Amino acid sequence: MVDLKAEMKKRKKVVDEEIEKIFHDKGHPLWEAMAWYPEAGGKKLRPFLTMVSAGALGTDEKIGLPPGLAIELIHNFTLVHDDIMDDDDIRRGRRTLHQKKGLPTAINSGDALFALSFRLLSETEVPDNRIRSLLYEVSNAVLKVAEGQEEDMAFERTFEIGEKEFIGMIEKKTSYLFQAAARCGAIVAEADDLQIKKMGAYARKMGIAFQVQDDYLDLIGDQNELGKPVGSDIKAGKRTLMVIHALQHLDKKDKLELINILDSKNSQKDVQKAISLMKKAGSLEYCKKLAKRYAEEAKEELSFLDGSPQKEILLELVDFMIERHN
Amino acid sequence: MVDLKAEMKKRKKVVDEEIEKIFHDKGHPLWEAMAWYPEAGGKKLRPFLTMVSAGALGTDEKIGLPPGLAIELIHNFTLVHDDIMDDDDIRRGRRTLHQKKGLPTAINSGDALFALSFRLLSETEVPDNRIRSLLYEVSNAVLKVAEGQEEDMAFERTFEIGEKEFIGMIEKKTSYLFQAAARCGAIVAEADDLQIKKMGAYARKMGIAFQVQDDYLDLIGDQNELGKPVGSDIKAGKRTLMVIHALQHLDKKDKLELINILDSKNSQKDVQKAISLMKKAGSLEYCKKLAKRYAEEAKEELSFLDGSPQKEILLELVDFMIERHN
Repeated sequence: MVDLKAEMKKRKKVVDEEIEKIFHDKGHPLWEAMAWYPEAGGKKLRPFLTMVSAGALGTDEKIGLPPGLAIELIHNFTLVHDDIMDDDDIRRGRRTLHQKKGLPTAINSGDALFALSFRLLSETEVPDNRIRSLLYEVSNAVLKVAEGQEEDMAFERTFEIGEKEFIGMIEKKTSYLFQAAARCGAIVAEADDLQIKKMGAYARKMGIAFQVQDDYLDLIGDQNELGKPVGSDIKAGKRTLMVIHALQHLDKKDKLELINILDSKNSQKDVQKAISLMKKAGSLEYCKKLAKRYAEEAKEELSFLDGSPQKEILLELVDFMIERHN
Repeated sequence: MVDLKAEMKKRKKVVDEEIEKIFHDKGHPLWEAMAWYPEAGGKKLRPFLTMVSAGALGTDEKIGLPPGLAIELIHNFTLVHDDIMDDDDIRRGRRTLHQKKGLPTAINSGDALFALSFRLLSETEVPDNRIRSLLYEVSNAVLKVAEGQEEDMAFERTFEIGEKEFIGMIEKKTSYLFQAAARCGAIVAEADDLQIKKMGAYARKMGIAFQVQDDYLDLIGDQNELGKPVGSDIKAGKRTLMVIHALQHLDKKDKLELINILDSKNSQKDVQKAISLMKKAGSLEYCKKLAKRYAEEAKEELSFLDGSPQKEILLELVDFMIERHN
């Protein structure tokens, strides 16, 4: 058995050192703002995925570092802009960038991180034909993330959301960058199309499992274990797969009550009521199982890989993603 | 003599058709928002530059279309985000995107246009090694545009700006995308490094000439000819090269008066006073000459080119850029 946390830590160190190098000379005030999120921590999951995927396909993991870094900075750019769109105050224990530096600089810093990502991509040491693939992969993923973000915002205005539609949104908003990370790892390893596809499917399914499970975990356990109040998603009126499932399976009276709680400022008692309604509809159990199923399917995608420490890491990562971490 | 306007119109048609194709099927609400600026007109100068530059170096202009389109969409993305940062209401005779669709969708649409640009770039039909160069060129240019935008916003808070600093800001904010457009045209024409450099310098200098002259034109002529009130930049308190020049050449009393006008809501009489102060310092004449000098230098960069209709077009374009157009 590999020690996943040690493996993650090892690569996070490499990634953090590169980020330190990139933002070392903050001669320009814009660069100081750009560095605010990348230097604030985070698990650096996406470059981890790129590097380990490259390694699992027989290449030096280091070659996966530049595209991994590019995707990590893209992830950070989306966080900067998402925090503006959602008007959030705190990120990684720090003030959000627009709170700290104002809206214009935050928008501009996000744009600059985005541009920097692509410049990094151009510096990846792979044959030129692979550069074209990396470029397509990453740009297409960002386009999907933006579509997913738009769908997510539209969902906030309705309760008429189908499960398929909702999974499609998660897939774009959360999974696509994971998918791009794994595919880029395969691309720099000069894998063939089928291998690239399978690596991508692995990460995409893992991403869906992660998001579904994350929403589930918000509703169980206690505050201390969770690191935030139980049911904060309900308080925020967030549409989750459990909400969608419950609305489709509750009778009219219960359905209206659940909608009512989600639509208004509510007390902890209301939150408990909403949870019990979702339990009554079997929605928590349903989502837990669904996350598990996606996780299993993700692992199955890797059956084509030869045994290697990296394969083991990728398999372990799936379980890690659907566990609780504080 | 080439008929520049006819040449521009011809290529604008091709570009508009491509934009129409790209945004034809607005199946996704995000795409409707993304199309708002690209479909609203504009001279499509940047793809014009890419295509004609490619042609001037002996390649089929069509090969310059995808990177030209990519840069045009990037230009549009920067407009969407700039309009938010400046909180402008009107663009190309339409409501700005954030006014029409709200802040979150406007931010997100800009991001999506940015991503789409890079996806277009990946589809350019050139040898793979050129894709890497295009990627570097465009991503680096966007990074400079963001730096320039940040400097421009910082300048709004001070009058302590040197001429060199100011030209540096213009260079980043305005010239870099023109430069990238011309360089990308040379890159797809498989030009050598020196040729690429000269084409870029041509467009960069033309961009500076354009911006300096644009600020100058704001202060002369009458309202009808200008299409907006004379001195709207002064009313907005905008820092221009003329302001910077005047502040360096006026005596203390005049200097304070000029600062005072720029810093407060002012009448048309104040605007006239500010203009007369700048005239007294010789600032209008200075800037007109400077624009002219950059324009001449831009043309000189093209002396390496063989005679071709495209060379003539590029030379004509410089004059067009520093003329008044309503």
